[in-house]
Amino acid sequence: MDRILMAHGGGGRLMRELIEQCFAKAFGMEELGDSAILEFSGRRLALTTDSYVVSPLFFPGGNIGTLAVNGTVNDLAVSGATPLYLTSGFIIEEGFPISELSLIVESMARAAEEAGVRIVTGDTKVVNKGKGDGVFINTAGVGIIEDGVDISPLLIKTGDAVIVNGDIGSHGICIMAARNGLTFAKPLLSDCRPLNGLTQLMMKTAAVHFMRDSTRGGIAATLKEAASASGKCIKIKESSIPIAPQVRGACELLGLDPIHIANEGVVTAIVEKADAEALITAMKSHPYGANATIIGEVVSGPRGLVTLETTIGGTRVLDMPLYEQLPRIC
Amino acid sequence: MDRILMAHGGGGRLMRELIEQCFAKAFGMEELGDSAILEFSGRRLALTTDSYVVSPLFFPGGNIGTLAVNGTVNDLAVSGATPLYLTSGFIIEEGFPISELSLIVESMARAAEEAGVRIVTGDTKVVNKGKGDGVFINTAGVGIIEDGVDISPLLIKTGDAVIVNGDIGSHGICIMAARNGLTFAKPLLSDCRPLNGLTQLMMKTAAVHFMRDSTRGGIAATLKEAASASGKCIKIKESSIPIAPQVRGACELLGLDPIHIANEGVVTAIVEKADAEALITAMKSHPYGANATIIGEVVSGPRGLVTLETTIGGTRVLDMPLYEQLPRIC
Repeated sequence: MDRILMAHGGGGRLMRELIEQCFAKAFGMEELGDSAILEFSGRRLALTTDSYVVSPLFFPGGNIGTLAVNGTVNDLAVSGATPLYLTSGFIIEEGFPISELSLIVESMARAAEEAGVRIVTGDTKVVNKGKGDGVFINTAGVGIIEDGVDISPLLIKTGDAVIVNGDIGSHGICIMAARNGLTFAKPLLSDCRPLNGLTQLMMKTAAVHFMRDSTRGGIAATLKEAASASGKCIKIKESSIPIAPQVRGACELLGLDPIHIANEGVVTAIVEKADAEALITAMKSHPYGANATIIGEVVSGPRGLVTLETTIGGTRVLDMPLYEQLPRIC
Repeated sequence: MDRILMAHGGGGRLMRELIEQCFAKAFGMEELGDSAILEFSGRRLALTTDSYVVSPLFFPGGNIGTLAVNGTVNDLAVSGATPLYLTSGFIIEEGFPISELSLIVESMARAAEEAGVRIVTGDTKVVNKGKGDGVFINTAGVGIIEDGVDISPLLIKTGDAVIVNGDIGSHGICIMAARNGLTFAKPLLSDCRPLNGLTQLMMKTAAVHFMRDSTRGGIAATLKEAASASGKCIKIKESSIPIAPQVRGACELLGLDPIHIANEGVVTAIVEKADAEALITAMKSHPYGANATIIGEVVSGPRGLVTLETTIGGTRVLDMPLYEQLPRIC
């Protein structure tokens, strides 16, 4: 393979290989988590970045701007950090309507306010017509990890509970529907939302060993990552996974698997078993945790294996997808 | 004006108006400097971001990757910060050769090593063929401003000396030549280079009141910004400004003004007059300050005015250019 494929940006195995072989080696990165944890003046600083290239730019429940704020806030949040500051870099295609740019920027301001972060600096570049696609946005985020917070796949142990905060697959199916002009009898909104309030609540309530916002690759990619990084075996139960009826219907119709569909407001966490029930109760009190559910557990079994008990009682092995089923989802 | 023009990314008045009206208002940004200065654990953290869309991707003296590292390092450096960490976000066009991507990434690693910063986290997105232009890179940078460092246009006072560290206009003319297949008898390289070593030396040697890396808009845009932000009047002498002969020749031929041409390794500083000579001597000992020169001074005169004494003895008023003469220079 000597040229970049769409799949190299898809959050699956191909992307991981590119990152490992091309970026991580050259830059001497040891871990490939969502945020880097760094030393700054004796405290732990979390630093993350994401570029957003979603198509279409506007979709039910959000737009590229809300995605650019919430996505980066969430990367910080699941590393255990309190998000503080964001940067914003715009690459705008010549001819893009300023009115649409303003809508996006105002959405970002509102999203930042809701998440309690400040967008403190930015950059604007313009590329010739036909050399971009409306607008691309990069955000980088800085957060602080308070003393005492300790989240690492190495803490995952047999018996731990696997939980999600709510319905999976909504963002991916929403984008796919918007792209193809599909509508649902009951409208489906993207789950694009800031998770930092919820993750703070989770860390206060339970011993959280691992958290990820399950974006590209869906919860399957997150679970596979957790199993690989911890060397543990994870078993989840398909019937326990919360899924909106529109997402279930669309997936059945199109032959997609919701556990592989991208989310923008789903945290998958692995927590101490003894704390799990209390945690679910606490999460249900938060607007972004209303459908919080235990979906599985860490079990004895082969290192790095993730299995799914299907609704009809069978067992399927989950693997890291080769790439995201829908390109340019975020 | 209801659509984005190339000029909105050009670093001049049009860009400034877009930033002020669209971004700064929505995000509540007070200052529009290169770096935001923020509180983190009781210390001052500098945070900056830039997206790079330079065309062509490779040019004499560098490529988009070296630009992406040095540009962000320099934004931190001129705010008085010691650069520490960089993020890197790639937006790659489908079909881009992985061999070229590797060259760019390896250049970034070397540039980071030279500047003494670490690239600690990244992101990869792929857009469809025809929806990008090879590769765009965003870097965000985090630095620390040591206690005691104080750099602000408000410190600029009458009598201060205006200095540059070396030849101006090399990057812009180099890119223009590469884009148009022009060659010089003696090759011209971009001045793309990290300035943090030099700025640290400058701050140790002199009372530095103001520094900027003079990128889009050239040193004219920097001087106008300094005059406007300080409410002072600045006078520079055209014959004092160091310019490589190839740049001078190309500018004469094409009717361009080198003081408006973009640089990627030029720091324009305003410093205490009494320190200026010693500062120039110290800068000349540094490889990136070999052509350091006093090019003007802060004088009594109308607030915000910048004048240029031309080589033939006339006086010209410098204004912020409407936009950069060459688009996609960085």
